Amino acid sequence: MGTEAKRWGFQGKQELNAASATTVRGYLNLLMANVSHHNSSPVIPLGHGDPSHFPSFRTTPAAEDAIVDALRSAKHNCYAPTVGILPARRAIADYLNRDLTYKLSPDDVYLTVGCTQAIEIVTAVLARSGANILLPRPSYPYYDTCAAYNRLEIRHYDLLPEKGWEVDLDAVETLADENTVAIVIVNPGNPCGNVFSYDQLNKVAETARKLGILVVADEAYDNLAFGSTRYVPMRVFGSTVPVLTLGSVSKRWIVPGWRLGWLVTSDPDGILQKSGVIDSIIGFLNISSDPATFIQAAIPQILENTEEEFFSKIICTLRECADICYDKVEEIPCLTCPKKPEGSMFVMVKLNVPMLEDINDDMDFCLKLAKEESVIILPGRAVGMKNWLRITFAIESCLLQEGLARVKSFCQRHAKKQ
Amino acid sequence: MGTEAKRWGFQGKQELNAASATTVRGYLNLLMANVSHHNSSPVIPLGHGDPSHFPSFRTTPAAEDAIVDALRSAKHNCYAPTVGILPARRAIADYLNRDLTYKLSPDDVYLTVGCTQAIEIVTAVLARSGANILLPRPSYPYYDTCAAYNRLEIRHYDLLPEKGWEVDLDAVETLADENTVAIVIVNPGNPCGNVFSYDQLNKVAETARKLGILVVADEAYDNLAFGSTRYVPMRVFGSTVPVLTLGSVSKRWIVPGWRLGWLVTSDPDGILQKSGVIDSIIGFLNISSDPATFIQAAIPQILENTEEEFFSKIICTLRECADICYDKVEEIPCLTCPKKPEGSMFVMVKLNVPMLEDINDDMDFCLKLAKEESVIILPGRAVGMKNWLRITFAIESCLLQEGLARVKSFCQRHAKKQ
Ligand SMILES: Cc1ncc(COP(=O)(O)O)c(C=O)c1O
Ligand SMILES: Cc1ncc(COP(=O)(O)O)c(C=O)c1O
Repeated sequence: MGTEAKRWGFQGKQELNAASATTVRGYLNLLMANVSHHNSSPVIPLGHGDPSHFPSFRTTPAAEDAIVDALRSAKHNCYAPTVGILPARRAIADYLNRDLTYKLSPDDVYLTVGCTQAIEIVTAVLARSGANILLPRPSYPYYDTCAAYNRLEIRHYDLLPEKGWEVDLDAVETLADENTVAIVIVNPGNPCGNVFSYDQLNKVAETARKLGILVVADEAYDNLAFGSTRYVPMRVFGSTVPVLTLGSVSKRWIVPGWRLGWLVTSDPDGILQKSGVIDSIIGFLNISSDPATFIQAAIPQILENTEEEFFSKIICTLRECADICYDKVEEIPCLTCPKKPEGSMFVMVKLNVPMLEDINDDMDFCLKLAKEESVIILPGRAVGMKNWLRITFAIESCLLQEGLARVKSFCQRHAKKQ
Repeated sequence: MGTEAKRWGFQGKQELNAASATTVRGYLNLLMANVSHHNSSPVIPLGHGDPSHFPSFRTTPAAEDAIVDALRSAKHNCYAPTVGILPARRAIADYLNRDLTYKLSPDDVYLTVGCTQAIEIVTAVLARSGANILLPRPSYPYYDTCAAYNRLEIRHYDLLPEKGWEVDLDAVETLADENTVAIVIVNPGNPCGNVFSYDQLNKVAETARKLGILVVADEAYDNLAFGSTRYVPMRVFGSTVPVLTLGSVSKRWIVPGWRLGWLVTSDPDGILQKSGVIDSIIGFLNISSDPATFIQAAIPQILENTEEEFFSKIICTLRECADICYDKVEEIPCLTCPKKPEGSMFVMVKLNVPMLEDINDDMDFCLKLAKEESVIILPGRAVGMKNWLRITFAIESCLLQEGLARVKSFCQRHAKKQ
């Protein structure tokens, strides 16, 4: 039987390929493929937010112990309930209640396969036909990817670099219409490294209330704030507007590979319940995969046993790295940093293309940098801002210094002659 | 500010609620809610396939050790690549190569969050507009759920109880048309407990080839065969027809809570590649969640270190349980078992409703059984066959005996007087 002539009735699905073309992973793979094999110096990864490989960012033994205990008990090899196991939901509710006047119950907490799955859920649930969602620019692009895949129309509001990445609230009001369902706020910010003030968040809540839309608060970097602005969770405004909090252990515990996150509903007035959003969240969970049960089971012990010193050590390290990053970038003429990072693991830096001789744009910059210097930096277009760069500072400080020194000599080499 | 008057612009999504209404989890929750609190005897769960809680089904320490080793190395707290980490993909390729003449490469293996996510991927990837898929009846209903959610038209072919649950191949040919993309085969069978013969699978492959459709082989219960029919993986027919093998560690290692599965492409002639299916699989993985990295990292050690004795002990236990189940069901006049189970953890049993006094149908039977006897059995309608029952025999044998004794006395109590 010849196979060549045979007609087969199946094919791939273009939407999937299109959706995945624009992910951060996609850009980073492209850049890594561009690293020159002739270059003997090691690759310095300033492109993505996963410092778990570096000694300074190793997670606490308390968290590892919790996993081992849960596994060795042999009580958690089973399937978990759709919404997650109760002790973990209770522990997360308690953890998140610390800053609140009203109280979250375990029923408000849904366990997810990382914050990633929480984003999938939110975009799937809110995507009724004709609906639109307000996303920040620059953004964490997975929101754009998931919204597009779920046919939820995207409208971007700007974060304003000249105002320390504040939300352009006037734009929010202009963009929204009767089909707008939600606004997404990432705090501490990826990619900007900003931390929103209490006042700013209050204004976002008031605006959302006025527009009749809910707030999706991505707090994947919760508590990773090391500047002068105190981190305030969006859910403290839960009485003003319904809030969906998205979080995970990935960043604060530096274990992104554990794939344990949460979606939490702050809904003291029962609005999400009445609107059917809660039922749809459960509906989505019923037809999708869960985080590993023994990792769920470890959550109470992880939250209880992690020492304050671990958290403060990580905050110190991040602050140190942010300082180095800011100072080194300041020394490079063609780069400008509008605001010193105060949180998360990233900073946005403006690229002054006209100052460079043979660099066309951010993508060209990053490709040549990867090739010539083995340094990986994310081009701004990947997060919605052409001719900017997103730099990750959450890596071992000696590597960060070395990486930015290479960026500097790269820029000098490519600078326009005066 | 009064919240009552406020109009909010968001709502839930009906499709999600509808899709999730028909899951096995949904039925089991309903039945559990019906168990009487006055009944002091413990609930006997013959409804779902998760024996991990029972001492006879405890997983091997070798598997637990592999997880602990991977975790303690602290090398696997990081994000994993989209497709899964290479050593795990290689180990799974080797594991699955044992029965093959052509060889799978690590590139043919994609790691998934349980076999569950592999089903999500397959249905999403194949759901081009207008396409239809052939699903078995009775079925593992998650295929129906995911196909419906992805707007992939479902056409059911029958498994024939009078022929030991053979595929009705004539029906397959009649059902298929130029928009048919695939046929799903679950082997060993859930819910029927059958194992397809080499000949039968060969015929399925030939038919699929004739129709130009691919075969989705759900082998979640791979190697869990304990009768006279030898288990043959579908991918041995990979040169006849492209095969997608779906599997996981959930059942053979009895660790469904670990959420580690795989999607494997058997495509020696490159047909899946050419048709764009491979790109779309990767596309889907790019925009979805991964299994925990340290669990991925444990896979090579799990596959290598699990002793033959563990597998054979589990097979023995399952065979014993299947025998008990078959014999006890035979003693109950209103139940008929068309075929003694030879694999998986389930058996389908026909309910003779007219022999019962005050039982309307399978649902009524299961609800009253839960209430009066605290025994949970899945009504056949949950898997597409009204007035049948799906019984799980994979539980501790003393509990199985006790459960079926309760079913017997329930049936006697409700039998029509002669
Ligand atoms: C803003 C933001 N949200 C969500 C995520 C996903 O996090 P997780 O690892 O919990 O899936 C990330 C990861 O980088 C992120 O930066
Ligand atoms: C036929 C079949 N396929 C797939 C699955 C899902 O398995 P996993 O636990 O690997 O997600 C099951 C679980 O019961 C099943 O019975």
